[in-house]
Amino acid sequence: RINSERLWDSLMEMARIGPGVAGGNNRQTLTDADAEGRALFQSWCEAAGCTMGLDTMGNMFARREGTDPDALPVYVGSHLDTQPTGGKYDGVLGVLGGLEILRSLNDLNIRTKHPIVVTNWTNEEGTRYAPAMLSSGVFAGVHAQDWAYDRVDAEGKRFGDELERIGWKGEEEVGARKMHAFFELHIEQGPILEAEGVDIGVVTHGQGLSWTQVTVTGKDSHTGSTPMPMRRNAGLGMARILDKVDEIAWSHKPHAVGAAGHIEVHPNSRNVIPGKAVFTVDFRSPELAVIEDMEARLRTEAQAICDEMGLEVAFEKVGGFDPVAFDEGCVAAVRAAAERLGYSHRNIISGAGHDACWINQVAPTAMVMCPCVDGLSHNEAEEISKDWARAGADVLFHAVVETAEI
Amino acid sequence: RINSERLWDSLMEMARIGPGVAGGNNRQTLTDADAEGRALFQSWCEAAGCTMGLDTMGNMFARREGTDPDALPVYVGSHLDTQPTGGKYDGVLGVLGGLEILRSLNDLNIRTKHPIVVTNWTNEEGTRYAPAMLSSGVFAGVHAQDWAYDRVDAEGKRFGDELERIGWKGEEEVGARKMHAFFELHIEQGPILEAEGVDIGVVTHGQGLSWTQVTVTGKDSHTGSTPMPMRRNAGLGMARILDKVDEIAWSHKPHAVGAAGHIEVHPNSRNVIPGKAVFTVDFRSPELAVIEDMEARLRTEAQAICDEMGLEVAFEKVGGFDPVAFDEGCVAAVRAAAERLGYSHRNIISGAGHDACWINQVAPTAMVMCPCVDGLSHNEAEEISKDWARAGADVLFHAVVETAEI
Ligand SMILES: NC(=O)NCCC(=O)O
Ligand SMILES: NC(=O)NCCC(=O)O
Repeated sequence: RINSERLWDSLMEMARIGPGVAGGNNRQTLTDADAEGRALFQSWCEAAGCTMGLDTMGNMFARREGTDPDALPVYVGSHLDTQPTGGKYDGVLGVLGGLEILRSLNDLNIRTKHPIVVTNWTNEEGTRYAPAMLSSGVFAGVHAQDWAYDRVDAEGKRFGDELERIGWKGEEEVGARKMHAFFELHIEQGPILEAEGVDIGVVTHGQGLSWTQVTVTGKDSHTGSTPMPMRRNAGLGMARILDKVDEIAWSHKPHAVGAAGHIEVHPNSRNVIPGKAVFTVDFRSPELAVIEDMEARLRTEAQAICDEMGLEVAFEKVGGFDPVAFDEGCVAAVRAAAERLGYSHRNIISGAGHDACWINQVAPTAMVMCPCVDGLSHNEAEEISKDWARAGADVLFHAVVETAEI
Repeated sequence: RINSERLWDSLMEMARIGPGVAGGNNRQTLTDADAEGRALFQSWCEAAGCTMGLDTMGNMFARREGTDPDALPVYVGSHLDTQPTGGKYDGVLGVLGGLEILRSLNDLNIRTKHPIVVTNWTNEEGTRYAPAMLSSGVFAGVHAQDWAYDRVDAEGKRFGDELERIGWKGEEEVGARKMHAFFELHIEQGPILEAEGVDIGVVTHGQGLSWTQVTVTGKDSHTGSTPMPMRRNAGLGMARILDKVDEIAWSHKPHAVGAAGHIEVHPNSRNVIPGKAVFTVDFRSPELAVIEDMEARLRTEAQAICDEMGLEVAFEKVGGFDPVAFDEGCVAAVRAAAERLGYSHRNIISGAGHDACWINQVAPTAMVMCPCVDGLSHNEAEEISKDWARAGADVLFHAVVETAEI
């Protein structure tokens, strides 16, 4: 069993870096706070006797040697970046849960056959730079590195420039590593495990996602002196499309979801009818056909709304991944670990995207989930219990060590 | 007649300060560009032999002496600040049209009995600091000066601090001046005069306005893993209210208008369901009862929408003025001037708010309007013809000089 007090203390210490405004965290990717969090993680890994690798996307790899020089490492990890108003566990639990494995193996004086490598993937959240899971995506060959470097944030700052600025761009070629397997522990970010009183989610699948950035163009004009029939109100067009997004997602009940989290109008002045509205629609489902249907209907319905209102509309796909089926062997290792340790468990589909979803394309992969209070995540009030964290980390420990062989 | 080439040249020279991105202007109030525009205006006034007064709200008063030391001055002017994506004429035509009166009187060597004072009112637009017409409002005793100083912009910068920072806070007590009359020339910002081929709008009334800032509160949570029934999506609540705003305004056709120009969601992250949405609803009508009805319905309907969605909603009135009836004598002077000069004219109701609407509370006031292309304003493409500018400034000249007596 891992040392759950030590794990919890490390979680709390990491949470002091990039504090939020309401008890959570704002440690967005490639900010100074991100750099500080990375340095703390590195110091802990070095104290645990690891060497640190760093690739050209800023992905971090803390390695504990195995006994067999020819064996590929077992990888374990997640991400340390957070949402602008994020919680203390989303991502962090998976990285520090990985570190806790190394520390526990040290305590027990156990050498595994395969090396174990704990990873911190850069820009998982996708808030500052879309898409999410950007650097695990480049690692898995889904995105080109130069394309990733050219992503810009809301202030026009390039990903590549910011990675250099914070001093965490490495020399190692991204994606060159070969993995024996990859495991990721993550909070559920949904309500199912808590509601059912189950300790462990054995993640068999992940929902797919589609992010469509919609730009509605009208004409900015005076809110007072422009008669109603002459208006081309892009903000109103957006409002009607947002209502339709909700309707489309509900129509696939119970499994599809849809919403827009990112919304801007221009020039955003109280007495100017918006001439432009830009927003990103996020649709998800475990079924590819459903995602494709929702995306197609969004385009058709938004076009119809805009045609009727004399507005123009353009669509750009800014993120997406297909539903994922995790590796049967790795999933079985997670289930067996929960069974062996006596934790209650059930199969679950991940509602969120995770680095594991991309790594699954290049290595046998599985995920362990633990409950979170009220299913709340991407909120500073995100919370888990120490017991949930311990159960998750214990199961991760056993699944990883089993796979890395003693 | 005024010198329309000189007027046009001055308009174009002023437009070089605080250029926009599409041929118009971004010379928002209390920015460095505003300070530069003020300095240029002051230099022109001094070259025309005027003294410059400056009050504690930054309102500028360029004075040309009259022959009767006991006669109250006739005031004329508008504002030099612009929208973030504003035009070259909104406000500026009224200030430089006033300056052109002084220059023309100098050319003609005419002394009026009453002094003539050309004004530039601070923060008419209300974009950076709500409400609009802030400083003419303080001048007229509608707002307290300390309250005005405490207004903050989107970055949290106080009006009072920014006024000092740009160096245009005067010593003169705001509102201490007594006026014989006030005239304001402004572009229509609507389509009526151009459509009817009429040179001059004799402004008899102004629409009233109500600005309600609406805050919808839900709960930020994950767009992927939060099931549809558990969502409290403040952005979706906002969308439904925006649609209702449009419906409410149309229900009072043909005279009421309504829209939201200013919209924000929090935390504004692609994969976070908005926990908060803040937007400002702008309703206008020439009839007070209609404005009151729209405002009341907004509150009732928004409350009903939010109740149904499990959202909270709060309302704050951030701007408002009652419909205005301008002074009959001043209106008659404008009409007589158009008549005398042979310009076609019609009575018109101003769709926008103007400094004249507040000054009307403390002095006999009227406005002159000229057409603008496609009725377009609060847009960088705002345009007028030289002929329209000349006709407007000619009528202003005659109405002012008639009132100031020779
Ligand atoms: N786990 C998580 O919140 N990932 C961010 C990507 C997503 O939006 O699902
Ligand atoms: N004239 C003008 O655009 N004034 C700004 C105040 C308003 O929104 O009417």
